[in-house]
Order: sequence, then C-alpha cells, then structure tokens
Amino acid sequence: MSVTVVGSIAFDAVTTPFGERERMLGGSAVHFSLAASFFTDVRVVGPVGDDFREAEYGVLQARGLNTEDIEHIAGGRTFFWRGHYDYDLNTAHTDDTQLNVFGDFELKLSDASRNAEVLFLANIQPDLQRGVREQCANARFVAMDSMNLWIETARDSLVRTISGVDALLLNDAELRMLTQQPNLLRAASTVMEWGPQLVVAKQGEYGAALFTREGVFALPAFPLEEVLDPTGAGDSFAGGFVGYIAAHAEDELSDDLLRRAMAYGTAMASYNVQEFGTERVQRLTPEEIAQRVAELQQITTFEDAPIPLRG
Amino acid sequence: MSVTVVGSIAFDAVTTPFGERERMLGGSAVHFSLAASFFTDVRVVGPVGDDFREAEYGVLQARGLNTEDIEHIAGGRTFFWRGHYDYDLNTAHTDDTQLNVFGDFELKLSDASRNAEVLFLANIQPDLQRGVREQCANARFVAMDSMNLWIETARDSLVRTISGVDALLLNDAELRMLTQQPNLLRAASTVMEWGPQLVVAKQGEYGAALFTREGVFALPAFPLEEVLDPTGAGDSFAGGFVGYIAAHAEDELSDDLLRRAMAYGTAMASYNVQEFGTERVQRLTPEEIAQRVAELQQITTFEDAPIPLRG
Repeated sequence: MSVTVVGSIAFDAVTTPFGERERMLGGSAVHFSLAASFFTDVRVVGPVGDDFREAEYGVLQARGLNTEDIEHIAGGRTFFWRGHYDYDLNTAHTDDTQLNVFGDFELKLSDASRNAEVLFLANIQPDLQRGVREQCANARFVAMDSMNLWIETARDSLVRTISGVDALLLNDAELRMLTQQPNLLRAASTVMEWGPQLVVAKQGEYGAALFTREGVFALPAFPLEEVLDPTGAGDSFAGGFVGYIAAHAEDELSDDLLRRAMAYGTAMASYNVQEFGTERVQRLTPEEIAQRVAELQQITTFEDAPIPLRG
Repeated sequence: MSVTVVGSIAFDAVTTPFGERERMLGGSAVHFSLAASFFTDVRVVGPVGDDFREAEYGVLQARGLNTEDIEHIAGGRTFFWRGHYDYDLNTAHTDDTQLNVFGDFELKLSDASRNAEVLFLANIQPDLQRGVREQCANARFVAMDSMNLWIETARDSLVRTISGVDALLLNDAELRMLTQQPNLLRAASTVMEWGPQLVVAKQGEYGAALFTREGVFALPAFPLEEVLDPTGAGDSFAGGFVGYIAAHAEDELSDDLLRRAMAYGTAMASYNVQEFGTERVQRLTPEEIAQRVAELQQITTFEDAPIPLRG
C-alpha cells in the first residue's frame, strides 16, 4: 500500500563538529519519504516556496516519490531551519527557525491524499495533524511524530490527536514529558490507553524500543565509527518503519512484522546519520539496506545456553 | 573457577523518589560478589570497621561467599556513602562520602587471593587496583571498573592499570571521557589498543554494549515497570558478567560466550534495581535468573525476512 506523509519540506543549515552545510534539502516529510521510498509508493504533502526548484524536486523524483501534492506558494520562501550539534550529537541546538510558507499553511489534500491507506503525520502542529487525520477517514494505519514544543504549548490538542492514531513515534524523553510518567514502560502504557496500539520510543544513539499490548521489543542503534549529522534520523527511522508496515499492510500487524519494521527503521536511520542531510540516503541501494539489517541482527543476537546456577 | 573481587564494602544511605534507606549493606565488592555467587565461588577482599557485624557477614555467607579476606580494622568504621537520585535515575548525586577504614587501606592479599584465577578490580583508586593485579600474577582473566573521579585525578595511573587487564567495564560517558573520543566504537578501540581484549560500555537504563576485536554486541536493559534504586546496578552487572565467564573459564573466551555473559550481567542488574540495595538479589533464585535471561532473549530477537526493496 502507498504511504502519504504530511510534514515539513525545508532547507536546513547545519553545523556539527565534523562539518557544515549552509543550505541543504531537509524537513521531516523529506527525510521520511526518501526512506519510505525503498519500501512502497510515497506521496509527499507540504508547502514550498519559490526557492524550491528543479534540483530539489529532482532529488525526490529520483526516488520515485509522488510530488503532486507539494504545494508551491508563489512569492513564498521554503521553511528554513538552522541548527548545530556539539560532540553530544543527541542534542540539536536550534539557532534560527523561519516558518516562511509554513506560517499560514492551510492544508489542501488532494483526493488521492485523502484516500491514503497508510498515513504518516510528521512533526507539525497537532491541530494540523488532527485535521489531516480526519480528512483521511479511510486510512488503515496512521502513525505520527511530535516534539517537546507541542507538549509544552498544545498538550491537550496533542493528546486528542494521539488518541486518533494507531502508532506514536516519539523521543523517550518526550514520551516521559508527555505522560508525566518517568518510567518508560508506564509512559507507553499511558499512551496506549489513549488509543494507539503501539508506541515507539526513539532513543537516539541508544536505539529504539517498541511497545505493544503484547509486550516490548528493544533494538540498539547500529554502531557506527563515524556520525556526521544526526538531522533527520528520527524521520528516516519512521520512513523505514512505516514504509515496511505499508509494504505489508495486507498482513496482520503481528509482533514479528513490527519487529522487522523496527530493524528496517534502524537501518535507515543509521545511513541517514553517516553523512549530512539526505546525502547518504540519496545514493543508498537496496543491497546496502538488506546488508545492514542482517548485520544488525548479528549484532543483537545471543544464544542462551542454560547453565547450572547456584541457589 | 573461583573469582576474587577487591573493592569497597560499605554502608549506603540512599534516597530515591520511591523511598529511602538510612543504612544498608552496599559497596562495589558486595554488589559484585552477591551477583557472582550464583555462578561460581567468590572470595571478597576489602576492609570493614567495628560496625560491620554478624548481620552483614550473614548476608554474604548466606550466598556462600568466602569472607576470610574481609579485613576487620579494629576501632575503625566501615566506608559510608550517602546519595540521592531524582526521577532521572541514571544520575547519582553524592551527598556524603566517609572513607573511614578505606582512608589508609593497605591491601594484604592472602595466598588464596593471590592465586585467584579470575579477578575483578572493582572501582577503587587505580594504583591500588594495579597493585592487586600485579600480586595476582597467575590470574587468567582480570576485569576492572573505574569512574570519572579517577579519570579526572589519576588518568595516567588509570591507563597503566587498564593496560594490564583483559576487560574494562565502564559507563559510556566515562569511556568517552577517558579516551577523549566522542565516538563510542573508537573509544572502545582506543582502550583495546592499550591492552584489554574486550570493553563493556555500561549505558544505564539503555543497557550495555560489548566491544571485542571480533566486533560489537549490544543489549538493551531489561524493561521494568518499577525501578526503586539503581545503586549497585553496574556492579551487579559485572558480577553476572564476570561470574558467568569464571564459570566457563576453561572454555575459549568466544564471542558467543561473552554475549551470554552480557545477558546474565543484564539480568543481575535488572534484579538489583527493583528494590533497594541488595534486598532483591539476597532472595533471588536461579530459576528467576534463568527466566529473565530467556525473557531478555525474547525481547531482543527479530527474524529477518528479506523483502523486495526498491532501488
């Protein structure tokens, strides 16, 4: 099944201890959709300005993305984010945010987008997310992301939005903040009481944990000798995770399937961070993804051999 | 093979958001040896004062520990630590440290201790650790822990001590600090260049990662709904890890064996944190340990099923 993603399409300026880029393609919908494109058809929804040109469309179309619902706002400028990371690459420091065309963005979904069977609501204002979710009444699987800003400024709306989706993907610290529950298992249970059938706690360099009504699955991040830029890693994870689910949406959403989706999400996030912005994912091959998932399995597997323990 | 552990034997006063204890048995050697006692014979080396009485010896002896090398310093008081944790249970805040008998502790190893085949140097001053290591010339496997204090105040001595052991267990942030290398894989490689054949990065609630010359193995912490007191978790991990290795020291130190040791260490740490101090581990059963390792395997396993990816 095809995936529709609604979120930001952006230009990012990023500085890390390992380099910098003054202007590169970014945004949650971009990172998500490039990653998801390896698994299924993807339709991208979001506004751009006059500065979004053939080169940028070209990156998306080279991965076969459907860009019909990227809305060009004449006279506008594309969303812009400037940030930097210190050696602790888990923490992004925002230096500048220019909403530009996102400032008064009214979402017009095409009929095709409204008929989305799998929908990802990337991190945007929760009222907007809920509006999209309500327009996509036929969606069989809806996942969403969010961030601390909305927990602090629009928590009630965010909780209502969460109650209408199947899956919440969120940083673990934000999951605790959202539920006011310091224990992660309980935080995830609280979210599942609101409605979602599954919760993914993203843990940055430590990996990710999946919570369902059946139990827990935890996966470390893929260990890398070099991480250049973590921007977009969470969205690439979501693209792999939701993309994998969409490619198997006819199947029952079993625990086994969700675990594999976690592995593919982890693989996509690991490639994302190896270079700046979308650079690595743009030239990624299916073989490389398959190889990383296989290595991830190798890295996380142990064979138990019961031994005599002393009482 | 039996394990000898040298480290602190202490009374701890601990406050967490979930309760407090004014005086409980603690110390790195105590947590380590109680955990290791499920796997092999353990000999505890360290000083105590007059306040260390039958009740405390009783806890150790109930687990079959050899306490002959616990040195009673007449007129002295046992090492005392007071600390508290906020909701972020990963960070211990020290409120008071009274070295007491540890202040001018001269290590006298008995012949039996000097003949240790497996040795664990718990977190004490690195000169002391090195002195012990040199006295135990026949040890076939030596592991050690340390902490930020020694990295800041005695780094050269610490590096020399590390160069003489087989395994370093350290918090991941401390591993980065020690090697001045922000990337964990490279930090572990740096340590292995100094001498150790393996490094374990302890990651608190996120689990632990094993680095060997063969590669990486990563294991999440066992997910718990309730964590009451993390004090001693790292030492209980080490007790399970080193205890498992000691119980299999005749075998080749293969990657498979080390992975299983990581799983048993993780299981021991998870029980440690479920109650205060040594309370839970004192009444732990072999069946509970085996069950937790089996659950840990269940929680971390995924079956890859190659799928058609889109180039």
